[in-house]
Amino acid sequence: MAATGTGAQELENHHSERPVQLCNPHVASLKEDVLYHFSLGTGTHDLPAMFGDVKFVCVGGSPSRMLTFIKYVATELGLGRPGDEYPNICSGSDRYAMYKVGPVLSVSHGMGIPSIAIMLHELIKLLYHARCTDVTVIRIGTSGGIGLEPGSVVITRQAVDACFKPEFEQIVLGKRVVRGTDLDEALAQELLRCAGELSEFATVVGNTMCTLDFYEGQGRLDGALCSYTEKDKQDYLRAAHAAGVRNIEMESSVFAAMCSACGLRAAVVCVTLLDRLLGDQIRSPHEVLVEYQQRPQRLVGHFIKKSLGRA
Amino acid sequence: MAATGTGAQELENHHSERPVQLCNPHVASLKEDVLYHFSLGTGTHDLPAMFGDVKFVCVGGSPSRMLTFIKYVATELGLGRPGDEYPNICSGSDRYAMYKVGPVLSVSHGMGIPSIAIMLHELIKLLYHARCTDVTVIRIGTSGGIGLEPGSVVITRQAVDACFKPEFEQIVLGKRVVRGTDLDEALAQELLRCAGELSEFATVVGNTMCTLDFYEGQGRLDGALCSYTEKDKQDYLRAAHAAGVRNIEMESSVFAAMCSACGLRAAVVCVTLLDRLLGDQIRSPHEVLVEYQQRPQRLVGHFIKKSLGRA
Repeated sequence: MAATGTGAQELENHHSERPVQLCNPHVASLKEDVLYHFSLGTGTHDLPAMFGDVKFVCVGGSPSRMLTFIKYVATELGLGRPGDEYPNICSGSDRYAMYKVGPVLSVSHGMGIPSIAIMLHELIKLLYHARCTDVTVIRIGTSGGIGLEPGSVVITRQAVDACFKPEFEQIVLGKRVVRGTDLDEALAQELLRCAGELSEFATVVGNTMCTLDFYEGQGRLDGALCSYTEKDKQDYLRAAHAAGVRNIEMESSVFAAMCSACGLRAAVVCVTLLDRLLGDQIRSPHEVLVEYQQRPQRLVGHFIKKSLGRA
Repeated sequence: MAATGTGAQELENHHSERPVQLCNPHVASLKEDVLYHFSLGTGTHDLPAMFGDVKFVCVGGSPSRMLTFIKYVATELGLGRPGDEYPNICSGSDRYAMYKVGPVLSVSHGMGIPSIAIMLHELIKLLYHARCTDVTVIRIGTSGGIGLEPGSVVITRQAVDACFKPEFEQIVLGKRVVRGTDLDEALAQELLRCAGELSEFATVVGNTMCTLDFYEGQGRLDGALCSYTEKDKQDYLRAAHAAGVRNIEMESSVFAAMCSACGLRAAVVCVTLLDRLLGDQIRSPHEVLVEYQQRPQRLVGHFIKKSLGRA
């Protein structure tokens, strides 16, 4: 929101706004910044004009799901009508898809930590160049549940690694660097309240395990490679459950680490497509899975509407 | 190629053929196998009929580049004409795109180790279920070069990690598992010979560093986060060069590890889009980058043509 009052009021407003920060002193000295995987850049696009009003960024793996979301949220917020078209802002690249309506940006991130990390580096720089303030970022995704009815939604308390630690480890210049994976507790509770208000599907707050692999990395027995038994798998998943893990996906830890480092209020809301204690393969009919995938969208759509005073 | 001779000849032919193997005893007992991220499965598709003749699988990050490749190779092999349409075999999902012409399969894998690993688990099972034999898998990708003229092509000798070790580490059931990253030496040499025959662009055989991140993980100074100096970065890249690394990308190590474990002859052929010793941002004009990205395609297209006796 642009400050519209007197100089003193403007100053006050600016003081209460939380800008998007980079943790990189080098970017300020770049003459031009090419956001390569978005096919956008400071030299070719007026980023403040395009994105300066963004307050909510929703991210998810699948490009078509993020298009569905922007259409849904546009209708919910009264900013569009069914049948409206939303052009892909990143159409110059096929790495990610990006859509916008009003204060809401919807971006796909592909699968896995490296893929979402590239997107987040460029997204955070985009929000910084656009001089956005008070931005909330929410991942709306799919996951495997542990001990939950398929279709349940998990709001992440802590993102943990494959050893159940709330850490994100990466190798920087050949050395191990460990970052925390804190998410915004108040935001998670607010999302849980929204789920209660909707009262359309089971929703819990729990830990989310973030792995680097979908098959062996999540204890599946149905990959091309597997060197353990059903019992080993069950022991591992039950240990995860005992550590508070309620679902497993592949992006939450780096998402939490990067958003937290850059002053972005962040949450992870994933639906569970199956209960991993009962199997590995996703066998529900297509239309059931499609409805499951709409649940995080409906929850976050309600949250945004409420935040904007329109619910 | 189906054996067409007498029973004894068939037996002999089968003995000389190398089937695609799984390293997982559990898959044989699955009543149905759903290849979820391809939207294919043994219960819904006749995989031997669809894929039984596949001898070459080419994989790359971008879906549109893999469509360009199948059109190119179809024309090169005399199996198609310019303007022919190639439907996406995985159109039921937007996770990966897959195209086929004759014995060549072209599949996108997104960005990063987790994304290509999911694809490879399902690809290797697909080839196994289709009873394919003597399959060669080649990754045709993009990368950052070290000390090479942009546009140079690197055929990978060894895929190494961010500490320059020829290893792929993953966490399985919470425990560290390390696999080798061997690639087929004879195949790399044959590809180098093909590059010499084409004589269209500089091509070298060198080590390829595979990282989990594009920004901090590759020593870039232009991400949203960066806590080191230009000198730290230069020291790291020069140490990589001294260890034989000629390019950096994000998929080769798990690609080498999984193909090697499952008896697939594999190679990695990547063009370098920039020289990382001179900068971080990819600033070449779009049409230059498009031509660079065709170089691995032309090299591998020539190799396939020659392997099939059509060059």
